[in-house]
Amino acid sequence: MGVSFRVPLYIVGLLLLALAVAMVPSAAVDAVVGNPEWRVFAVSAGLTMFVGAALVMTNRGSEMRLGIREGFLLTVLGWTVVAAFAALPFLFSDAKLEYADAFFEAVSGLTTTGSTVLTGLDTRPPGILLWRSLLEWIGGIGIIVMAIALLPFLSVGGMQLFRTESSDRSEKVLPRATDIAVAIGKVYVGLTALCALAYLAAGLTVFEAVNHAMTTLSTGGFSTSDDSMAKFTPLAQWVSVVFMIAGGLPFVRYIQALRGDAGSLWRDPQVRLFLTFVAAVIATMAVQRLVTTGGPPERVLREVAFNVISVVTTTGYANADYNAWDGFAKVVFLLLIFFGACSGSTSGGIKMFRFEIMGRAFANQMARLTQPHAVRLLIYDGRRVSDDDARSVLAFWATYVATVVVVALALAAFGLDFETAISGAATAVSNVGPGLGPVIGPVGNFATIPDGAKWVLSFAMLLGRLELFTILVLFLPRFWRD
Amino acid sequence: MGVSFRVPLYIVGLLLLALAVAMVPSAAVDAVVGNPEWRVFAVSAGLTMFVGAALVMTNRGSEMRLGIREGFLLTVLGWTVVAAFAALPFLFSDAKLEYADAFFEAVSGLTTTGSTVLTGLDTRPPGILLWRSLLEWIGGIGIIVMAIALLPFLSVGGMQLFRTESSDRSEKVLPRATDIAVAIGKVYVGLTALCALAYLAAGLTVFEAVNHAMTTLSTGGFSTSDDSMAKFTPLAQWVSVVFMIAGGLPFVRYIQALRGDAGSLWRDPQVRLFLTFVAAVIATMAVQRLVTTGGPPERVLREVAFNVISVVTTTGYANADYNAWDGFAKVVFLLLIFFGACSGSTSGGIKMFRFEIMGRAFANQMARLTQPHAVRLLIYDGRRVSDDDARSVLAFWATYVATVVVVALALAAFGLDFETAISGAATAVSNVGPGLGPVIGPVGNFATIPDGAKWVLSFAMLLGRLELFTILVLFLPRFWRD
Repeated sequence: MGVSFRVPLYIVGLLLLALAVAMVPSAAVDAVVGNPEWRVFAVSAGLTMFVGAALVMTNRGSEMRLGIREGFLLTVLGWTVVAAFAALPFLFSDAKLEYADAFFEAVSGLTTTGSTVLTGLDTRPPGILLWRSLLEWIGGIGIIVMAIALLPFLSVGGMQLFRTESSDRSEKVLPRATDIAVAIGKVYVGLTALCALAYLAAGLTVFEAVNHAMTTLSTGGFSTSDDSMAKFTPLAQWVSVVFMIAGGLPFVRYIQALRGDAGSLWRDPQVRLFLTFVAAVIATMAVQRLVTTGGPPERVLREVAFNVISVVTTTGYANADYNAWDGFAKVVFLLLIFFGACSGSTSGGIKMFRFEIMGRAFANQMARLTQPHAVRLLIYDGRRVSDDDARSVLAFWATYVATVVVVALALAAFGLDFETAISGAATAVSNVGPGLGPVIGPVGNFATIPDGAKWVLSFAMLLGRLELFTILVLFLPRFWRD
Repeated sequence: MGVSFRVPLYIVGLLLLALAVAMVPSAAVDAVVGNPEWRVFAVSAGLTMFVGAALVMTNRGSEMRLGIREGFLLTVLGWTVVAAFAALPFLFSDAKLEYADAFFEAVSGLTTTGSTVLTGLDTRPPGILLWRSLLEWIGGIGIIVMAIALLPFLSVGGMQLFRTESSDRSEKVLPRATDIAVAIGKVYVGLTALCALAYLAAGLTVFEAVNHAMTTLSTGGFSTSDDSMAKFTPLAQWVSVVFMIAGGLPFVRYIQALRGDAGSLWRDPQVRLFLTFVAAVIATMAVQRLVTTGGPPERVLREVAFNVISVVTTTGYANADYNAWDGFAKVVFLLLIFFGACSGSTSGGIKMFRFEIMGRAFANQMARLTQPHAVRLLIYDGRRVSDDDARSVLAFWATYVATVVVVALALAAFGLDFETAISGAATAVSNVGPGLGPVIGPVGNFATIPDGAKWVLSFAMLLGRLELFTILVLFLPRFWRD
């Protein structure tokens, strides 16, 4: 019995049908404003629906079970095929992107990365702008559900620590996966609506508010303006800070909080580490900027807080060109690209729980040097982390760095300069958005880099979003045998 | 019973007495050429001998035993105090270095790093040039003996895999540590003499040949010329390549080879991985350079082979400005800085055995994804690696990256630019020598960077040379308790 494609392809078919439906709002807004580009979305939706229906019909059957290997296959196929069809509107639209660019933009959206090859956003038709925001919003909820319902059972990079059987034992959140998905969907929609209202109050138009609410909660970072959030009021930028943080917290804790356990967010070690970490970075950097360059304290604090939160939550908005700050800021921002916020949020990167486990493994290692024979347990969130799981986290960390290194080499081989290659690799794998340097920095754009590099980056964004091993395992000959 | 300083200080005293003796040749050459700087060495030797003798006399006693904690203390004190006194000739000489610079130069020498703050080498008196070469040569043998006799028993970063009890079981190299040290000393002197003869044959003067032989075998990289090895003939550069490789191989294998087991070098998994790795990198890069820039094949191959071997063995000679090649070369060289050759050689960096164990841990991790319940052993060099030891290697790797990151942040905080901060941190921790960029690249120099950054780099060189944990453990409050 090899790997069965039937069930994965059936579910991919369903995902394509849903994707086709998601193209309707974009067609509608273009039709409402009288822009002929609504036809682009109609054609794309038709094509996507046709292939989706074909997959559903050819692969349906009575038994709908997924083994571990089919789980991996579904995850990788799902994200790749959906991205391939999500690229169609970019391909057919007035933007006239080549397929390499269109796929890049679609992957960047679905993985909530937010790197873009489009310029002149402010004058583009609303349909295509809404499409970009929707892709991030869909990708955001997709990753939360995947991180809660699927990855823990595939034991990817320590995600087994978030298995619900084990958390159920101590916490009894919710009995069934579908219930969790529905509850998380409600929280996600609710937070997005709140965010849109707050943006409205801060002076954005309805269209801007809705789009930015979708790309804020999903920690995606696409904007309707080439100036990103710098276009809007200081108040709007503070709203952004709040809701980027909201998007970076573990969504399952919101449900617990709503069901009466108000302290559940703060009791989560990921939340505590994340908030403490960003507070420390922001404080250090704001003081350093006030001392070295000066300026109005509110502006300095806002620029530092906004961009630090934007990068650590892997959103990728910008409200200032931190690339032009100083060498210290550049090194800090390069490092921040790797972090990510909490697992079970829309955020990418290595994520806080892996840093905490790394730190504890390091402390144990140090302690073992002076007392070689003492037995030390690794405790995380009140539970013992098994040796296997700890190794899984360490291996993830090492693989993450190695992946960034290999991607950087590939980018450099396509002729990208040192800074662009390294920061581009990091920002893609971590699903952040902007890199460093004049080309792809916070005020730059990915349009000018070679096609080959765009394919590498698209692959890198998918690798990062699917926690590396989910994709890498498919390259194992053993995976396909027996 | 806290940590006892008595035995460590006694041994440090002995080391200082030896250091004072090592200053004699420099005084002698200056005296022979009639340069008054011989007095600098006489004064430095007197001072060093005085303090050494005082330490020996105040700390001697009947019982000479070292516990684990005293082992750590001795290692750290030994390298730091010897460096502090080795800096004296730089401080008193015509070069008129400040103490920050003098200590930097001494640490760079003893750790066989080879970064320098001195310029105008070609016109300096022979004594100071010989002193730099001698420091690297002494540091080189020091690190080999330490890696064989001390670190395995301190269980630092997976070095426990090289414990002689365990290797004795299968190989019966040598019964006692002092025998090993003497045998390794002979091999070291023999190889250095061979190297000097080869340099002589390739056109160097006797003084140049002796100095470069010492800094080649120790994979140190100090030169008697500002142009480094670019000053000499192509043949001399090929001689360098051969002996840099020789310095990067595990010295215990030479002894086995000399005692009749000719295949012992090639059977060592570190040697195989190292040679395969550098051959692959050199081939790829030489082809890429021939295709993109062209040029005489011998020169292209020589420049690529020389600089790749120089960086991977952590020597740090240069015969071409690879910083001015292309973006690809820069990314490759930044990465190569981290590697290092074999453990038990004079080379620094992460080292080959840790990459092999990392790779095997990664393969096990991947295999576990598809077969979660299968038990997989980690085998290295025909022996099983325990879970503890594997974790020790993974923790070392992660700590290495984290250390480079923290050092880079500190350098950036002292105002160094992005490229200088990152490559400077890497090159210091890996004990390579040159970094990237115009300031500290292969044709640059560390003279111009701020004093604070020099102290950070000195500390980083010691951290890297002592395999991180040896120093970090001293910062543990627990270390000093009980």
